[in-house]
Amino acid sequence: MDDVDSSQLITNDHLVQSEDPDHPANLIPELCKRFYQWGWVTGTGGGTSIRRDNHVFIAPSGVQKELMKSENIFVLEYPTPKYPPSARKYLRKPLALKPSDCTPLFLAAFDHGATCCIHTHSQWAVLVTLLVEKLHGKDAMFEISNIEQIKGIPKGREKGMLGFHDTLRIPIIENTPFEEDLTEYLEKAMAKYPDTYAVLVRRHGIYAWGDTVAKAKTQCESLDYLFQLAVEMHKLGISWT
Amino acid sequence: MDDVDSSQLITNDHLVQSEDPDHPANLIPELCKRFYQWGWVTGTGGGTSIRRDNHVFIAPSGVQKELMKSENIFVLEYPTPKYPPSARKYLRKPLALKPSDCTPLFLAAFDHGATCCIHTHSQWAVLVTLLVEKLHGKDAMFEISNIEQIKGIPKGREKGMLGFHDTLRIPIIENTPFEEDLTEYLEKAMAKYPDTYAVLVRRHGIYAWGDTVAKAKTQCESLDYLFQLAVEMHKLGISWT
Amino acid sequence: MDDVDSSQLITNDHLVQSEDPDHPANLIPELCKRFYQWGWVTGTGGGTSIRRDNHVFIAPSGVQKELMKSENIFVLEYPTPKYPPSARKYLRKPLALKPSDCTPLFLAAFDHGATCCIHTHSQWAVLVTLLVEKLHGKDAMFEISNIEQIKGIPKGREKGMLGFHDTLRIPIIENTPFEEDLTEYLEKAMAKYPDTYAVLVRRHGIYAWGDTVAKAKTQCESLDYLFQLAVEMHKLGISWT
Amino acid sequence: MDDVDSSQLITNDHLVQSEDPDHPANLIPELCKRFYQWGWVTGTGGGTSIRRDNHVFIAPSGVQKELMKSENIFVLEYPTPKYPPSARKYLRKPLALKPSDCTPLFLAAFDHGATCCIHTHSQWAVLVTLLVEKLHGKDAMFEISNIEQIKGIPKGREKGMLGFHDTLRIPIIENTPFEEDLTEYLEKAMAKYPDTYAVLVRRHGIYAWGDTVAKAKTQCESLDYLFQLAVEMHKLGISWT
Repeated sequence: MDDVDSSQLITNDHLVQSEDPDHPANLIPELCKRFYQWGWVTGTGGGTSIRRDNHVFIAPSGVQKELMKSENIFVLEYPTPKYPPSARKYLRKPLALKPSDCTPLFLAAFDHGATCCIHTHSQWAVLVTLLVEKLHGKDAMFEISNIEQIKGIPKGREKGMLGFHDTLRIPIIENTPFEEDLTEYLEKAMAKYPDTYAVLVRRHGIYAWGDTVAKAKTQCESLDYLFQLAVEMHKLGISWT
Repeated sequence: MDDVDSSQLITNDHLVQSEDPDHPANLIPELCKRFYQWGWVTGTGGGTSIRRDNHVFIAPSGVQKELMKSENIFVLEYPTPKYPPSARKYLRKPLALKPSDCTPLFLAAFDHGATCCIHTHSQWAVLVTLLVEKLHGKDAMFEISNIEQIKGIPKGREKGMLGFHDTLRIPIIENTPFEEDLTEYLEKAMAKYPDTYAVLVRRHGIYAWGDTVAKAKTQCESLDYLFQLAVEMHKLGISWT
Repeated sequence: MDDVDSSQLITNDHLVQSEDPDHPANLIPELCKRFYQWGWVTGTGGGTSIRRDNHVFIAPSGVQKELMKSENIFVLEYPTPKYPPSARKYLRKPLALKPSDCTPLFLAAFDHGATCCIHTHSQWAVLVTLLVEKLHGKDAMFEISNIEQIKGIPKGREKGMLGFHDTLRIPIIENTPFEEDLTEYLEKAMAKYPDTYAVLVRRHGIYAWGDTVAKAKTQCESLDYLFQLAVEMHKLGISWT
Repeated sequence: MDDVDSSQLITNDHLVQSEDPDHPANLIPELCKRFYQWGWVTGTGGGTSIRRDNHVFIAPSGVQKELMKSENIFVLEYPTPKYPPSARKYLRKPLALKPSDCTPLFLAAFDHGATCCIHTHSQWAVLVTLLVEKLHGKDAMFEISNIEQIKGIPKGREKGMLGFHDTLRIPIIENTPFEEDLTEYLEKAMAKYPDTYAVLVRRHGIYAWGDTVAKAKTQCESLDYLFQLAVEMHKLGISWT
């Protein structure tokens, strides 16, 4: 029914048409509108993707995120090869829009078990990557403990949430000139820290994911809260751990 | 009519259905939407509860506060035992939702005479608890005077509002790994400072309450304004008292 | 037609009922909703008043400014005695609401020729009053020059707008325990600086006014922009003049 | 059909009436509403203009930008003389509104190939011009590199976007007492830096433009993001390049 036939590429409109507000093609524009207000997807930056069964829904590249519509959403068959882009099995490719450069990174998160992956350019995330490098060097992770909001982040899949006295650790990878080239480093960080639900990208932002769409969003909010608090704590001379 | 019969637990829908915008089941979602915009209930953090006659309405645990609906609200008979949770007399328990961990803390506020209790994770509140500890030690309260907005906070029940030259004092308790365990310390702080309308929780946020829903909200706003101002004053080298 | 007859006090509803969005009774709630979003009227703080012909419309005391309705508006005959409050000629007094403590201050602005007066508790205004005192002492005014936004403030009535190289000067008065007692000092500042369209109140906020409602609002915005910029400039070690 | 006949000046209403949301007369009010929320056009500051074929649409001077309507838009024939103002060929001049002082600056951007030009008073832009002067002197440009968001800015017309390791350079011109007098300096900066899509104005704000309306907006957002980040980086002692 959803043949990967290039003649049909732009006709599978039924894949993004639904009255259900919880359908991925409706959720992605709704989430992006909210993320725009938080400054997470300024100037077409950032993106969001949701996997449902064997379909992956992705916001397109280079559009104003707060104006995105369901009809702008790309749909991939899942699983699908990450490289080369031409090998990816698109079920729907909106005419005149470009697929997101974040596509292989989102696919990596889904391979890791996620249902939704959010990529933001949040300034708090960027500032935290700069502060960690300045204070502890390039190999250090972001670490914070003894803050209630840490309890909004899981210890790992099916391991429950972090406790107040636990230390939240988020790995930081270096940025690459081409976003797709981050995939390798993101996957390495996931392999090294299999329990993490997010990876910071130095001078760039964050990739955060979750077992459900709601968890991806609320965990990403909790992380951003902690990054902002950490920057303000640093300004006031208060240490993070 | 509202029997505490477990077979009826999820059927007392009439308790949260009302056309009246001032009904607690309508006010709580409305307030939470606003608090989300202020960053007070980021990532499912925080919560709100209203008592009306012998009913207590509580926002559920772990939901996106800006998307909450009347039908998500828990209703308890009041008074009800605080512990153990199983002894609490629920008149309405929405299927698939968890009661808030703040429940015994809200009940403590109602025992203290409140009509509405608001719990936020406001970063300004958290930063103030950190600054007070850094400047004056763990036993110190937050103190500020000679700021007009102080007049938005009462001196105590039926004692009128604080004056411009009065000193506002908010007790600070230490956080505990489990939110429910805060209840004991909240009650002790209430007993020690019977006139206070709020208690700060170090590295966590604030519990604030009021004699009416409007007063709980506006007092909580005034406190948050003062916490933000205090942090900025500190950055500029200006003392709080 | 609008007799000041106490039996009619709450029945002159026609004075606040209009389909015209530019009617003062419609503008005041609209403005207050906006000011709430800017943090200018947090927790029932601040207020707004508009004079039209021989009527003065005033937001009530102690209400949530973002929820205010036309029917909450007080109407005074203008001119009217400032003191004692009982001598003021109310044409409309909403039942169960208290007249604003800012009433004599608004009247002072109207006596000075204003059409609309806005009172905010903006934190930027408060911080600027604290910084001026710290840097230049209690007798100093707030002064800033060579910022484009200064051109949004008039030189004085019918004197055109300030130029880029002009110095904007806003007098600062000390706060008093009772808001009404500020009136004397506000009037003295107006007498001493007849060209000013605003007076800062130390540790409290600002009173700003304008020849039209739009001018009062946009001038108040420009001032708040300058206060915020001034605080940030100070943090970066850049002087204001 | 659109004669520049003074008797018709205010009757060419069809030029600003369209059901198409992407019509310039609909886009400008929509954009200004958004810019108001970002603090870019506080107190009637700033402005926006769009060129379509041989028509130039401009927001008027001195209006509340968030309340602007299509019917408030001025329309010029393009090309048109920049000076004197009386030589400009207005196709539509709304009664009782003043043409924007930014008019010749917008025309300069269109002469340079732009389709949309945005002028903001963003505080981040102003602070960056002050910091550059303080750190590097009056002749220095704003420079930043190794930040992902830089990729939102083009290298120059038909040259693709900047890369992560490229340095973004934005020229800064000195402010002039009269906005129109900036035109000469803006044009000189454009001639000297033909690839730039923006020019900062010291102590004033920014002019930014784009090949399409969407690009002008998203590039302006990316620049503002970078200015804010740069100010915060400076506060944390982290260099921009």
